[in-house]
Amino acid sequence: MPIIYLDQKEIPTHYYNVLPDLPKPLPAPLHPATRQPLGPQDLAPIFPMELIKQEMSAESQIEIPEEVRLAYQLYRPSPLIRAKRLEKELGTPAKIYYKYEGVSPVGSHKLNTSLAQAYYNRQEGVRRLATETGAGQWGSALSFACNYFGQECMIYMVRNSFETKPYRKVMMNIYGAECIPSPSDQTEAGKKIRKEHPNTPGSLGIAISEAVEDAFARGDTKYSLGSVLNHVLLHQTIIGLEAKKQMEMAGDYPDIIIGCHGGGSNFGGIALPFLADKLKGKKPKLRAIAAEPKSCPTLTEGKYEYDFGDTAGLTPLMMMYTLGHDFIPSPIHAGGLRYHGASPIISLLNKEKLIEAVAYDQKEIFTAAVKFAKNQGIIPAPESAHAIKAAFDEAEKCRQSGEQKTILFNLSGHGHFDMSAYQEFLSGNIN
Amino acid sequence: MPIIYLDQKEIPTHYYNVLPDLPKPLPAPLHPATRQPLGPQDLAPIFPMELIKQEMSAESQIEIPEEVRLAYQLYRPSPLIRAKRLEKELGTPAKIYYKYEGVSPVGSHKLNTSLAQAYYNRQEGVRRLATETGAGQWGSALSFACNYFGQECMIYMVRNSFETKPYRKVMMNIYGAECIPSPSDQTEAGKKIRKEHPNTPGSLGIAISEAVEDAFARGDTKYSLGSVLNHVLLHQTIIGLEAKKQMEMAGDYPDIIIGCHGGGSNFGGIALPFLADKLKGKKPKLRAIAAEPKSCPTLTEGKYEYDFGDTAGLTPLMMMYTLGHDFIPSPIHAGGLRYHGASPIISLLNKEKLIEAVAYDQKEIFTAAVKFAKNQGIIPAPESAHAIKAAFDEAEKCRQSGEQKTILFNLSGHGHFDMSAYQEFLSGNIN
Repeated sequence: MPIIYLDQKEIPTHYYNVLPDLPKPLPAPLHPATRQPLGPQDLAPIFPMELIKQEMSAESQIEIPEEVRLAYQLYRPSPLIRAKRLEKELGTPAKIYYKYEGVSPVGSHKLNTSLAQAYYNRQEGVRRLATETGAGQWGSALSFACNYFGQECMIYMVRNSFETKPYRKVMMNIYGAECIPSPSDQTEAGKKIRKEHPNTPGSLGIAISEAVEDAFARGDTKYSLGSVLNHVLLHQTIIGLEAKKQMEMAGDYPDIIIGCHGGGSNFGGIALPFLADKLKGKKPKLRAIAAEPKSCPTLTEGKYEYDFGDTAGLTPLMMMYTLGHDFIPSPIHAGGLRYHGASPIISLLNKEKLIEAVAYDQKEIFTAAVKFAKNQGIIPAPESAHAIKAAFDEAEKCRQSGEQKTILFNLSGHGHFDMSAYQEFLSGNIN
Repeated sequence: MPIIYLDQKEIPTHYYNVLPDLPKPLPAPLHPATRQPLGPQDLAPIFPMELIKQEMSAESQIEIPEEVRLAYQLYRPSPLIRAKRLEKELGTPAKIYYKYEGVSPVGSHKLNTSLAQAYYNRQEGVRRLATETGAGQWGSALSFACNYFGQECMIYMVRNSFETKPYRKVMMNIYGAECIPSPSDQTEAGKKIRKEHPNTPGSLGIAISEAVEDAFARGDTKYSLGSVLNHVLLHQTIIGLEAKKQMEMAGDYPDIIIGCHGGGSNFGGIALPFLADKLKGKKPKLRAIAAEPKSCPTLTEGKYEYDFGDTAGLTPLMMMYTLGHDFIPSPIHAGGLRYHGASPIISLLNKEKLIEAVAYDQKEIFTAAVKFAKNQGIIPAPESAHAIKAAFDEAEKCRQSGEQKTILFNLSGHGHFDMSAYQEFLSGNIN
């Protein structure tokens, strides 16, 4: 049967923490002022202590709190789907599976970590969270999570996406959150950028600066990040952990795992629980492919070095692939992938050649997205379409070689709020 | 566990046909010109013979073709959800379940019948289908179904919805269909209305006239209807049939079943398989409630009489509750419920007091929709929000009386393409 459902009793009880299994320790993040390695206390003004602990934990398994598991039951486990009809259309002997995170009520995998983050913050008495959002998937997810756990939520949304995707703001408002375009005039970082670049489309790096400043400036607020950090990838491993059980139910195991790549949380979420087998020597040939946009080619063309996570230089410096913290990517439609940096975990794996990265242009990914939608029905988010394109390419290689490989990709979200981008593509305006 | 998944092996093999179980036969439809009872041959120009047979069938069980069941596996069975968190917020002793049809890739239950209709048409060599759509849910559904079975698709979309929900057209275009606003200048019916009412927002009745005329005028095209007719309700019984299995898995049976009501297909889809038990004397106290908009109060304020299904008088006359075939409802946001008539099956059940009907205004249903979204995450279609409001009202009665009734409603679709309506509501512009 194409859809492999997992019973809710099978929702994982623990997240998988890859840190102790990495081939070498992650280089420590550095303090933005002193450039000395950070201690937990340096992060305390912006994160609750439990998330700071997770950020540095040496435990392989971290228990998912009961209340978070209950919240996951609103939409998890997400389905794993064997796309036989697609295999047929592509004429490939490969087996194609995808995990569909668009069943989340906010439309993407982002809710997996927002619920955990809102919970841990609430446990430590935080009554308000501030964050940035690109395409709006993360902002929607944190809005609902804050509403769920009874907190206020403030969203700085990258101006380009704010203007082209106005309905994402409505969604955040429905969940009770406030959402304003970034750069805004509510923070010093925002004002400075607006003065220097009055027509800037904004970027995730700028919006992060604003949200971090917001959290620093107020005693009742902490900051929340939707990707990049170790604890975010940790929470997203629920995707891969479920997928492992579902692949087992299907009697299969992937040869190739694919996720789109912006900050690294959806790619890490699907890949890390499988990569654990590779890191432990059990699946030496397993390939994991991160698919990113050519206009923001962090892993394929960035440098592996210490850089800030934001534009203003308020965050710690992290060792990662980066295009430079002042890099402002062109306003492409896959707003969720417009980030100059990458998760330190994914960066290390890329540096060590334990994963691969590919980059695609907009026309390629929309062509793949429409082909997928016509075949499977689901209209993918442009971000997720990068993973689809990579899966198509691998399936095509199998068609040519005759190999029956098993491909698993993460369909991280639907494209219901990206219709203006599809409209442009169908009108021939994306080249 | 809140979500009750059914395995794909449990997708029903047969639709449930209520016709032989009705307390009296349905009054025959009449020919629009002669006003004599219709024979199968009268319908042959616009429908394939298999659907005409289903329209008049005396068989209780009608087998779902293998290929249609395979297509259903793209998204079915849909989940049944026990909304414990909602019960708690409402402070009700009632148990609230909902069947969620928004998991369909096109966003609503409409795909259940469009796949069947496209299939039967293809079996009889029809290469193009024409239809109308209100809010766009049906148009999207038929677009994907035609693409799936290799047919062309032509959609006449009610002008008001075409303008306020432009992204629905993009969705239909992604699936390869053509979509134009109705009334259009491509049909005589459309031209006549535009001449008489240049600023008309359009209506389903007008759009039906255009699509029927399109089918009559071309030898290669048949007409497809998204609600009202017996065969449409027949296909939608897959919702209630699955829900019966899922309620059984939950060890429960509904006291009250609720669906929103436009033409009757989603209400009939969830209710008829349960009403079968009532019609057979097994569940005499079972209540079924159809929830409609006050601005288009077909069941609550219409007359039970013979009327045309469309505005121009091209369709057969059917015995049904109607507001008059020239009734043009105000341009409310729940475009899918803007229909002057009702399904003959639902009309007979309403006339015989075997079901109940209630009507709500827009402010009431959006208030309920936002409350639901904040609690369950899912942002409902405004149409479906009518069912939510009715469920809230019944839950409130239980709170007051202390009765622990079991309420089941159909959440027929998501509201991802209705954000401008939510925006108006949140801005205080819906009163």
